[in-house]
Amino acid sequence: MSANVPTDVCFSFSGLIRRGGVTGPHKDGWGIVFYEGKGCRTFLEPKAGAYSEIARLVQEYPIKSKIVVAHIRRANVGVVALENTHPFTRELWGENWTFAHNGRLIGIKKRKLNYYRPIGTTDSEYAFCWVLDSVRRRFPLKPSGKVLILLIKKLLTELNELGISNVLLSDGTRLYAYCSTSLSWITRKAPFGKATLIDKDLQVDFQKVTSTKDVVTVIATKPLTANEHWEVISPGELKVFLDGQLI
Amino acid sequence: MSANVPTDVCFSFSGLIRRGGVTGPHKDGWGIVFYEGKGCRTFLEPKAGAYSEIARLVQEYPIKSKIVVAHIRRANVGVVALENTHPFTRELWGENWTFAHNGRLIGIKKRKLNYYRPIGTTDSEYAFCWVLDSVRRRFPLKPSGKVLILLIKKLLTELNELGISNVLLSDGTRLYAYCSTSLSWITRKAPFGKATLIDKDLQVDFQKVTSTKDVVTVIATKPLTANEHWEVISPGELKVFLDGQLI
Repeated sequence: MSANVPTDVCFSFSGLIRRGGVTGPHKDGWGIVFYEGKGCRTFLEPKAGAYSEIARLVQEYPIKSKIVVAHIRRANVGVVALENTHPFTRELWGENWTFAHNGRLIGIKKRKLNYYRPIGTTDSEYAFCWVLDSVRRRFPLKPSGKVLILLIKKLLTELNELGISNVLLSDGTRLYAYCSTSLSWITRKAPFGKATLIDKDLQVDFQKVTSTKDVVTVIATKPLTANEHWEVISPGELKVFLDGQLI
Repeated sequence: MSANVPTDVCFSFSGLIRRGGVTGPHKDGWGIVFYEGKGCRTFLEPKAGAYSEIARLVQEYPIKSKIVVAHIRRANVGVVALENTHPFTRELWGENWTFAHNGRLIGIKKRKLNYYRPIGTTDSEYAFCWVLDSVRRRFPLKPSGKVLILLIKKLLTELNELGISNVLLSDGTRLYAYCSTSLSWITRKAPFGKATLIDKDLQVDFQKVTSTKDVVTVIATKPLTANEHWEVISPGELKVFLDGQLI
């Protein structure tokens, strides 16, 4: 989620988390990172989100954030364990960077790492370390946004050549969404309407919980709502969002 | 907390968190890091822990861990904000390192940093980055425990020369406790007894919730229980705990 005002994701997360063991098979862990200013708070658990007490709190307790990255895991590389649970976070240039991944990357672990080391054993976290390593080696100091976006596009494209690699990446300001096989997004703004979740019997009237200036984009592997039009990101495409808007 | 078996800290945390706004003035944030294997899960909030719904969940939901680092904040350097909330975490040698600090460090921000950058504006996080930077510069690869402990002692002593610096530091295996002005600890093992919190009307019979092999050490700025004997760490002393035991 990317928004221009601090926004909660209780509605979207309530749908997504059901895919973690009830309406979907991604029952090997769940995690969510909320940015608040330069800080972020993270909830992680190496178990089915649909049945988690902590995930229930996150659905009910509105944490307001301009960027949120959430993930539900179906393990392939790396056992079910906390250290293998997405999203992963590292510091670069005094910023919290967050990475969530869906896919499989053949041979990624042969790449040399310099600054960042994986803590767990997933190909995903290794790939994240490699991306940040590559960015940092090229830019010891933070470059302009334009230059950074070009480099990130190049690196995520290179990752995708190793297999399947749908990525959500954020530095707390921009949200990068790279589609390898499946990613959709929707931008909601005034006039707001009603939305109904696909995975849960829940409806929200966004007009009642927003102001006319709000712009909120939600990105997901598959659309979370039934009655709205979601845009599909094409394979090989990177979309970058800032303050809820596609840039 | 350091233990030889995964142990929850519901009892101790219930006492500590009351000092975050009710029985103590540390109402500017609270945080807790639970290690589980190489991973860790962190709960952070830039508000009074005593009145936090998430802190209440953490008191009631037993998360079992061999090492836990918790902190309640009374802000001096750095505004009340999520990025200034302890404990801080960074990766070194593919391990999660965690740092919680109580004190004030004059001039720390003049020190050069190479690998790690602070995200917030506290002297504490800057000091943590400086410690890890110094360790990493000296040891690009992980050294033996003995050598590492000596270096950490040297660095924490150097920090303390800048003012006041009570520190809890962990790599997920060892728990380092450096006393500048105030730190106490207690090791509980068989035969276990009953304990009563100082800050809350709560008693626990450890015999009912432990096995005879369990060894659990709790370290705190001030003792958390009224009816047990806590050891006081002398100013300038570093104590290192492994699997619940002082080493």
